[in-house]
Amino acid sequence: MPIPPQPAVAQFDGGCVFIDGAYAPLSEAKISLFDWGFTRSDATYDVASVWNGAFFRLDAHMERFFASLQSLRLQIPYTRDELRLILHGCVRAGGLKEAYVAMVCTRGVPPRGARDPRLAQNRFYAYALPYVWIAPRDKQLSGIDLFISERQRIGPESVDPRVKNYHWIDLVQSMFDAYERGHDTSCVVDAHGHVTEGPGFNVFVVRGGVVHTADRGVLEGVSRRTAIELCQRLGILLRIAPVPAADVRSADEVFLTSTGGGVLPIAKIDGQPVRQFPGPITARLHDAYWAMREEPAYRDPVDYQD
Amino acid sequence: MPIPPQPAVAQFDGGCVFIDGAYAPLSEAKISLFDWGFTRSDATYDVASVWNGAFFRLDAHMERFFASLQSLRLQIPYTRDELRLILHGCVRAGGLKEAYVAMVCTRGVPPRGARDPRLAQNRFYAYALPYVWIAPRDKQLSGIDLFISERQRIGPESVDPRVKNYHWIDLVQSMFDAYERGHDTSCVVDAHGHVTEGPGFNVFVVRGGVVHTADRGVLEGVSRRTAIELCQRLGILLRIAPVPAADVRSADEVFLTSTGGGVLPIAKIDGQPVRQFPGPITARLHDAYWAMREEPAYRDPVDYQD
Repeated sequence: MPIPPQPAVAQFDGGCVFIDGAYAPLSEAKISLFDWGFTRSDATYDVASVWNGAFFRLDAHMERFFASLQSLRLQIPYTRDELRLILHGCVRAGGLKEAYVAMVCTRGVPPRGARDPRLAQNRFYAYALPYVWIAPRDKQLSGIDLFISERQRIGPESVDPRVKNYHWIDLVQSMFDAYERGHDTSCVVDAHGHVTEGPGFNVFVVRGGVVHTADRGVLEGVSRRTAIELCQRLGILLRIAPVPAADVRSADEVFLTSTGGGVLPIAKIDGQPVRQFPGPITARLHDAYWAMREEPAYRDPVDYQD
Repeated sequence: MPIPPQPAVAQFDGGCVFIDGAYAPLSEAKISLFDWGFTRSDATYDVASVWNGAFFRLDAHMERFFASLQSLRLQIPYTRDELRLILHGCVRAGGLKEAYVAMVCTRGVPPRGARDPRLAQNRFYAYALPYVWIAPRDKQLSGIDLFISERQRIGPESVDPRVKNYHWIDLVQSMFDAYERGHDTSCVVDAHGHVTEGPGFNVFVVRGGVVHTADRGVLEGVSRRTAIELCQRLGILLRIAPVPAADVRSADEVFLTSTGGGVLPIAKIDGQPVRQFPGPITARLHDAYWAMREEPAYRDPVDYQD
């Protein structure tokens, strides 16, 4: 499908949405109350980030987005190159040097009275907002307190967690539990008490010099993958396997990975101090993450010239 | 919160939404792309129906809606009496004698950059559309073919199925599976292979004169409850307990219950004819359901006079 020319720089200063095939201000970012993307959460999405004027691993995000679309039998009328231009256009129109950039596809609205999802025309949206941290900056410095909720993440036999989705009631309720107990954020477990993921992040622990993260029941985050690759680069031992909650509570170091912050050290688990904050391995991965963002192979600079 | 006066009859002929505290045409039924009701499916809803100019068991639907709100820590700024007036107003403005009437509450949009759901102002929507059948009328007569998918319904330890929610990826994918195999609709199972529910309905079977339906892992539908109460009234034996998929496949009769059709007989399971279609117990419950809708105790007539 033809896409519009790149919008003027800062045409929608502060944020821009791509909707109904055109760039628009954020105030126009609305969907139908009857779109199955809302009434059945029948949608997928992905979120990339821009820092210092460039996307990081945009190809990886787009690749996962297209895989998610295929898994849910959704389609967008754009090629990967067109999608890339649209995402760049949103950032450019928003005039954002640091941005949170989402691509979204919903089932759409089937004809009145019909219940066959194959009859719906799928809808595509994209938007760029100012960069969103998974935790406020001051909290990152003073130390994030992560609550391990007993709530269970929706199981992979119901919803494939590798297909990025909006099925988050379990995660949001765990956030309430965390906030009400005075913690800063939360993660949930699987049926065996293994830690899975939190709202928008993967969880890593360091024990005896070995980095551990869950192998299943989680979104295979691009930042998670980056942390894994950085362990390999830096010669840090890594084990991708189920992580019991007890192992998180007794870890030497704990960190999160997220597009909204990269590698973020955790200071406390359930209010109890983690042995090392920030731990040495976490610090190495944190620095390596931000350095990797500047490597040309992973950078996709936005054109801010009119 | 004050509500507007009742709208004029058929002011929005064919359907009406209540949004931002006012009645409006369906074309205005939109929500923000940033509402957590969309981006986290952090919402609840309920659907009542109007037939022959009157709501059926509206109190039961409103009671469940308020219970769902409380469970998800959502709030609407209306009392039950106000909610009732709003729903009546939507039907009246839509000029609908037979209607599908939804009440919806979403988390809303937290302040920019904040991730605390307690900071969001919850949003309320309601709308009335022409009555929606869970299956087309012609299909109801010729016989609905129900596919029992191997997909698992999202587990109660993740999302409480008694809190009506939009977490439906599992159900929608099971519909794709059904349609692609030539069946008419689908239901999903739990981890033990027991049949749970389908997209918008509960499943009942009749075996040796006893009616069976699932006791857990399902929405406690108002139509399900009505069928249960009708069994008690009519002296039909009833067992509320897990229902293995094999028991559905070998049942004497199978039927669905839904606000979108009441009691609907099933002709085939996975393409194989059910022993009796429509079966005698199903037929009795079907007729009793429609008769009960006319009983004054359960009827709440809409005022169609200006």
